[in-house]
Amino acid sequence: MSPKPETPLLDRVHAPADLHHLSDADLARLAAELRAETISAVSQTGGHLGAGLGVVELTVALHAVFDAPRDKIIWDVSHQCYPHKILTGRRDRMPTLRQKDGLSGFTKRSESPYDPFGAAHSSTSISAALGFAVARDLGGACETGHGDAIAVIGDGAMSAGMAYEAMNNAGHLKKRLIVILNDNEMSIAPPVGAMSTYLNRLYTEAPFQDFKQAAKGAVSLLPEPFREGARRAKDMLKGMTMGGTLFEELGFSYIGPLDGHDLGQLLPVLRTVRQRATGPILIHVLTKKGKGYAPAEDADDRGHARTKFDVVTGQQKKSPSNAPSYTKVFARALLQEAAEDPRICAVTAAMPDGTGLDLFAERYPSRCYDVGIAEQHGVTFAAGLAAGGMRPFCAMYSTFLQRGYDQVVHDVAIQRLPVRFAIDRAGLVGADGATHAGSYDVAYLANLPGFTVMAAADEAELKHMVATAAAHDEGPIAFRYPRGEGTGVEMPERGEVLEIGKGRVIREGKGVAILSFGTRLSEVMSACEALGARGITPTVADARFAKPLDRALILRLAAEHEALITIEEGAVGGFGSHVAQLLAEEGVFDSGLKYRSMVLPDVFIDQSSPADMYATAKLSAADIEAKVLSVLGVGAIRSDSA
Amino acid sequence: MSPKPETPLLDRVHAPADLHHLSDADLARLAAELRAETISAVSQTGGHLGAGLGVVELTVALHAVFDAPRDKIIWDVSHQCYPHKILTGRRDRMPTLRQKDGLSGFTKRSESPYDPFGAAHSSTSISAALGFAVARDLGGACETGHGDAIAVIGDGAMSAGMAYEAMNNAGHLKKRLIVILNDNEMSIAPPVGAMSTYLNRLYTEAPFQDFKQAAKGAVSLLPEPFREGARRAKDMLKGMTMGGTLFEELGFSYIGPLDGHDLGQLLPVLRTVRQRATGPILIHVLTKKGKGYAPAEDADDRGHARTKFDVVTGQQKKSPSNAPSYTKVFARALLQEAAEDPRICAVTAAMPDGTGLDLFAERYPSRCYDVGIAEQHGVTFAAGLAAGGMRPFCAMYSTFLQRGYDQVVHDVAIQRLPVRFAIDRAGLVGADGATHAGSYDVAYLANLPGFTVMAAADEAELKHMVATAAAHDEGPIAFRYPRGEGTGVEMPERGEVLEIGKGRVIREGKGVAILSFGTRLSEVMSACEALGARGITPTVADARFAKPLDRALILRLAAEHEALITIEEGAVGGFGSHVAQLLAEEGVFDSGLKYRSMVLPDVFIDQSSPADMYATAKLSAADIEAKVLSVLGVGAIRSDSA
Repeated sequence: MSPKPETPLLDRVHAPADLHHLSDADLARLAAELRAETISAVSQTGGHLGAGLGVVELTVALHAVFDAPRDKIIWDVSHQCYPHKILTGRRDRMPTLRQKDGLSGFTKRSESPYDPFGAAHSSTSISAALGFAVARDLGGACETGHGDAIAVIGDGAMSAGMAYEAMNNAGHLKKRLIVILNDNEMSIAPPVGAMSTYLNRLYTEAPFQDFKQAAKGAVSLLPEPFREGARRAKDMLKGMTMGGTLFEELGFSYIGPLDGHDLGQLLPVLRTVRQRATGPILIHVLTKKGKGYAPAEDADDRGHARTKFDVVTGQQKKSPSNAPSYTKVFARALLQEAAEDPRICAVTAAMPDGTGLDLFAERYPSRCYDVGIAEQHGVTFAAGLAAGGMRPFCAMYSTFLQRGYDQVVHDVAIQRLPVRFAIDRAGLVGADGATHAGSYDVAYLANLPGFTVMAAADEAELKHMVATAAAHDEGPIAFRYPRGEGTGVEMPERGEVLEIGKGRVIREGKGVAILSFGTRLSEVMSACEALGARGITPTVADARFAKPLDRALILRLAAEHEALITIEEGAVGGFGSHVAQLLAEEGVFDSGLKYRSMVLPDVFIDQSSPADMYATAKLSAADIEAKVLSVLGVGAIRSDSA
Repeated sequence: MSPKPETPLLDRVHAPADLHHLSDADLARLAAELRAETISAVSQTGGHLGAGLGVVELTVALHAVFDAPRDKIIWDVSHQCYPHKILTGRRDRMPTLRQKDGLSGFTKRSESPYDPFGAAHSSTSISAALGFAVARDLGGACETGHGDAIAVIGDGAMSAGMAYEAMNNAGHLKKRLIVILNDNEMSIAPPVGAMSTYLNRLYTEAPFQDFKQAAKGAVSLLPEPFREGARRAKDMLKGMTMGGTLFEELGFSYIGPLDGHDLGQLLPVLRTVRQRATGPILIHVLTKKGKGYAPAEDADDRGHARTKFDVVTGQQKKSPSNAPSYTKVFARALLQEAAEDPRICAVTAAMPDGTGLDLFAERYPSRCYDVGIAEQHGVTFAAGLAAGGMRPFCAMYSTFLQRGYDQVVHDVAIQRLPVRFAIDRAGLVGADGATHAGSYDVAYLANLPGFTVMAAADEAELKHMVATAAAHDEGPIAFRYPRGEGTGVEMPERGEVLEIGKGRVIREGKGVAILSFGTRLSEVMSACEALGARGITPTVADARFAKPLDRALILRLAAEHEALITIEEGAVGGFGSHVAQLLAEEGVFDSGLKYRSMVLPDVFIDQSSPADMYATAKLSAADIEAKVLSVLGVGAIRSDSA
C-alpha cells in the first residue's frame, strides 16, 4: 500500500467555490496536491490515469476562474474528470471509482450538479455546450442557473465529424461559448489525420518558450468587446499568438497555444476570456498526458488506463489470465487469414490497441487504416474498399458502431457490399458502465436485408467466424464477441468456414430446449449441470447466426420440446425477436409453445464486474436455471434469482 | 406536352467514351443539348431538377476528361446525376425515372457500371472515393478496373461531419484523390454554418471576372509532380487562386474557385489535374442551381425538386389534395404549442421545408435552429437544450435520424433528457426509394430504456402526439408519421395530452384482434369492411405506443380472441417484437395463441408509389384481409394477395 500524499490545501477544498479565494500561488500548490491525490486514488482503484494527470492545472484554473455549477464545464469523453471529481465534493468516494454502486469513471448528470452533461463517447462536448449557451440566451430554466458554457475537448476528439459540425454551427450562431482544446497529441492511441498534423504545426512552428509571451499578449490584446473594432485587435492578436486560422475560418476567436501546465498562463487568459468574450472562442492549451508521474509519462500510451498499481514503481497489479482475450483471438485469426489473402485489410476508428489491430498494423502497415475517431467515415471508407475489390474488416466496439449506423444501412447494406464487421465489446462491459455497453447491435443489424449476423459462443467459435467472414463475399457480415477473456477452450489450428445460417446442437436433451446466441452458452451449460441434479436435461443449441436464422433447427427444437428458451447478450429486438417472428409466422404458437426470450433488461446497467452486471441483468446461470424451472413449472424458484 | 428539344450531338453519344473525341466547342454544344434534354426529361417525370441543371457543364467536362467506368465518378447525394445518367447509356430510360421498375432518382450500383457507388444521403462521397483510391493502390480487383477516384460534393454537404472526417483522413493518407466542391450556395435549403460563410468569402473577396485568369494560372502553375519542389509552386498557386487555406490546412491542394459553367475553365483544369495530381486535391467550382432554366433559377429553392411540369411556363402539374400533409399538421400543431410555451424550440438538420419547421422559423426565428446536414450534432445540441431547461423538438426524417443514433443513445437516452423527436417520413416513402425508407426507427428506439415511442394513426392523432410530447418532461419521447397527406379526419381544435402507454380500441369484434401501430390503421379498417362481408368482425385497436406498451390492452386482446395480429410500418425488431416479448414473458403462448406480426419484409423495396410499395411489402388492406383469413383458417386466400 502506497502512503497517502500530504494534501493540506486540498483538505480545505469542499467545493469549487473554495478555490475562488485562493491566491495564484496557493492554486499552484493545490494543483500539485491534486496531482498526487489523483495518482494515489487511481493506484487503489485502477482507471483512466494519464488523461486526468494532463489536466490537473486546467481543472484547477477552470474551477478557480469560473463558477460551477452555474457555469457549465463539460468534459469531452470525460475520462479526464477524476481531478474534477476530487474538487467537486466527490473526493471521499474516489475509492469507489468504477466499481459497483461507486463513482462512475465518467461525468454523470445523476452523480453531481457539477456534471452538467455526462459523456463517455468522444466529441459531444461542443454540441452540448452550444445547447446550454442557446438555452441560456433563450431564458431556459436550469436548476443550477445559467452561466458560461465551456467545452473541454482533446485534440484526438477533433478528428470526429461531430466536433466539426458543432464548431460549424457555433461559428455561425456567434453565441458566447468557450471551447478549450486540450492538445496532448494523444487520444487513446496517437491521433491521426490532417487536423492532428495541423495542430502539431501550430506549436512546432514557434518555440515553446514564447508561449508565456503569447499568453501575455493575448490577454492585453483581447478586444473589449470582441464585436466592436474587433478586426484590428484580432489581427494583432493573430500576430501575437501562433496561428489558428482554421478555427478562425470557422468563426471562432483563437487564443493559443498556451502551456496547459502553467497556471501563470492559464489563469490570466481564462480570467480575461470570462470578462470579455462575446462570441465563440477557442483556447488552445498544450498539455502532456500523464504529466508529473514518470511511469505514466514514459509509457507508450501515457498511462491511458491502468489497473491498480504501486505508486512508487508504477507496477500494475494484474491477475493472471487463463485464456486469451477475445480481442487477441480476433487479431491473431485475422493475421492468419491475411497471410493468405492480400485482399484482406482492416479499418479501425482510433482504437488500434482496443481492437487488436495494432498487431495487424505492425505486420501489414499498408493494409491497416486508422481513420481517427470517425466511425461514419470509417464505415463508408470500408464500403469503398469493398467496392474496389478488397475484403475489409471494420473492427469497432459495438457501442461505437452506433456512430456509423446510417452508413451501415445506406452505404453497406443497401449496396450489399461485403464489409466485414468485427464487433468487439458486445454485451455488458464492466467498469466502463452503461455508456459502453454493446446492447443494441443485434437489433439494429439483424433487420437489415442481406446482412449476416453472427455471435461467437467462445474463442474457438470466434476464430471460425473470422474465417467465415473472410470467405463471405455475398454481402455484409458481422460477428460479435465480448470484452475479456475466452473460456479456455482448445483452439483450432485454422478457422473453419461455417455454413451460413446453420447453428449447432451442443447436447440433446428433452422437455426444454435452450437456444443460445453468443457467450451466454457457458452459463447455459452451468445451468444445465444444476438442472441435471434435478433430473432435467435440456437440449442446448448454439444458434451462431441471428441472421439468417437456422429455420430447420429452430422449428425442430420447437416441435420436439415443450419449451424453448432463447438467450442472448443484447436488448429486445435482436435474436430472440427474430426467432419469435419466425415461430409466429410458422404458426408454432397456434397450438402452444412455452417460449421465452432472455434478453438484456430495459434499464441502463451501471458499472460493476461483467459477471455482476449479468446477474443484475438476470442472464446468469442461476437465472437460466430459474427460468427453466419456472417455464416447466417444476420446483420452487430460488429466492436469490427470482 | 412540351416539344422534344433538338439534340443532334447528344443523339450520337451512347457512352461517355464518345465524348473523348469531341472538340471543346462541340462539348459546349453538347452541354447545351444535355441541359435541354434534362429539362425535357424531368418535365415528364418530375424529380430533382435544379441540382442536375447546375452540373451540366461539370458532367460533360468530367466525362470528356476522365475515363469512366475505370475512373470512378462518385456523385454526392446524387440527386444531381440526371445529366450523368443521360450520358451513360440511360437516356432512353429517363421517362421511367423514379417510377416503379424504372431508373432510380439517385446513382445505384446495380443500375449501371458508371455508378461505382450509390448515394442518396449526403456527404458520403469523399469516404467512398478514398476507399476506391486505397483499394486501387493496394491492387484490389475491381470489375471495371481502377483509375481515378473523384468525389463531386456540394457545399451544403460540407456541413456534415462525415465529409470533414473523410478529408481529415485523406489529407493524412496523401493518396491521389480528386474532390470537386460543387459550390452553389444551396443544399436543399440555403446552407448554414461557418463553412458556408467561409466558402462565400472565398469567392466574394475576388471579382468573378478574375476566375478565368485564375484557372489559367492554376493550370500553368500546377507542380509536376506535386510531391517534389511543391512548396514554391504551391505558394505561387495560392497567390493566383483565391484562397482555400482551410482545405490546405487539411492536407489538400486547392484550386479555385472556377466558374463551373465555363468549359473553357473546367476542361483545362481537369486535364491538368488528371495529368499531374499525386496527392489529394480539391477543385472548387462555382455553379448555379437551376442554371439555364429561368423558372428554376428564379425559384426560392432553385428548382430543387419538381412534379411534372410544363417546360415553357415551368408550371407544375399537381394533383389536388384532400387533406393536409402530416408534415404541415406537425408544423401547425407545434406552432400552437409554442405560442403558449416559450420553452418549446426546434432543431432541424438542413430540412426546414421538408420538416415543416420553416413555418416555425418564420414565427419564432430565435427558437428555431437549422444546424446544417449535421444530425449527430443536432441531436446532442437538442440534448444540451433540454439539459438547459428548454423543450426541444428535434425534427428529422426517420432515415436521417440514423445518422444521429449514437447521440440518441448516449446523449439523450442514457441521460433521460426530454428531447422530443418528431420523426417524419416514417415507413415507405415512394419515389425516393429504399435509401429514404424510414424502416428502422421503432426497432432502434423502442429498446432504449426510458424512451417513449409513439406512432400516429392519422393526422388528428399526430396533433395529440405533438401535445403529448410537449408536455412530457420525464425522458425522451418520439412520435413518427409518414410522408404524404393525412386521411382527412376531422381535426381537433387543440391537441390533447395522451395518457402515456395507453392504446385505444377502435372497434370491438370477436375471433381475431388486429393491433395497429401507425397509419396502417386505415388499411386495417378497409380490410375489416371486406371481412365483414364474410361475417368476420375483428376487434381493432390502435396501440399508439410501442413503448411503453399497453400491457393491459394487449393481454386482454390476447385473452379474448383466438388470434392476435399486429401491424406496423417498420421492420422486425420493432412494435411487434415488443408485443411478442410481452406475450412470451406472460406465458400467453404456453396454451396457444394465433399470433402474427405484420412488418416490412426483409428486402429493400425500390421506388414506386407508397401504396404500391406497401402492396409489395404485403401490408395493404388485401394483405391484412388475407392474413386474417389464413390465421382463422377460413376460406381460400385470394391469389392476388397470397
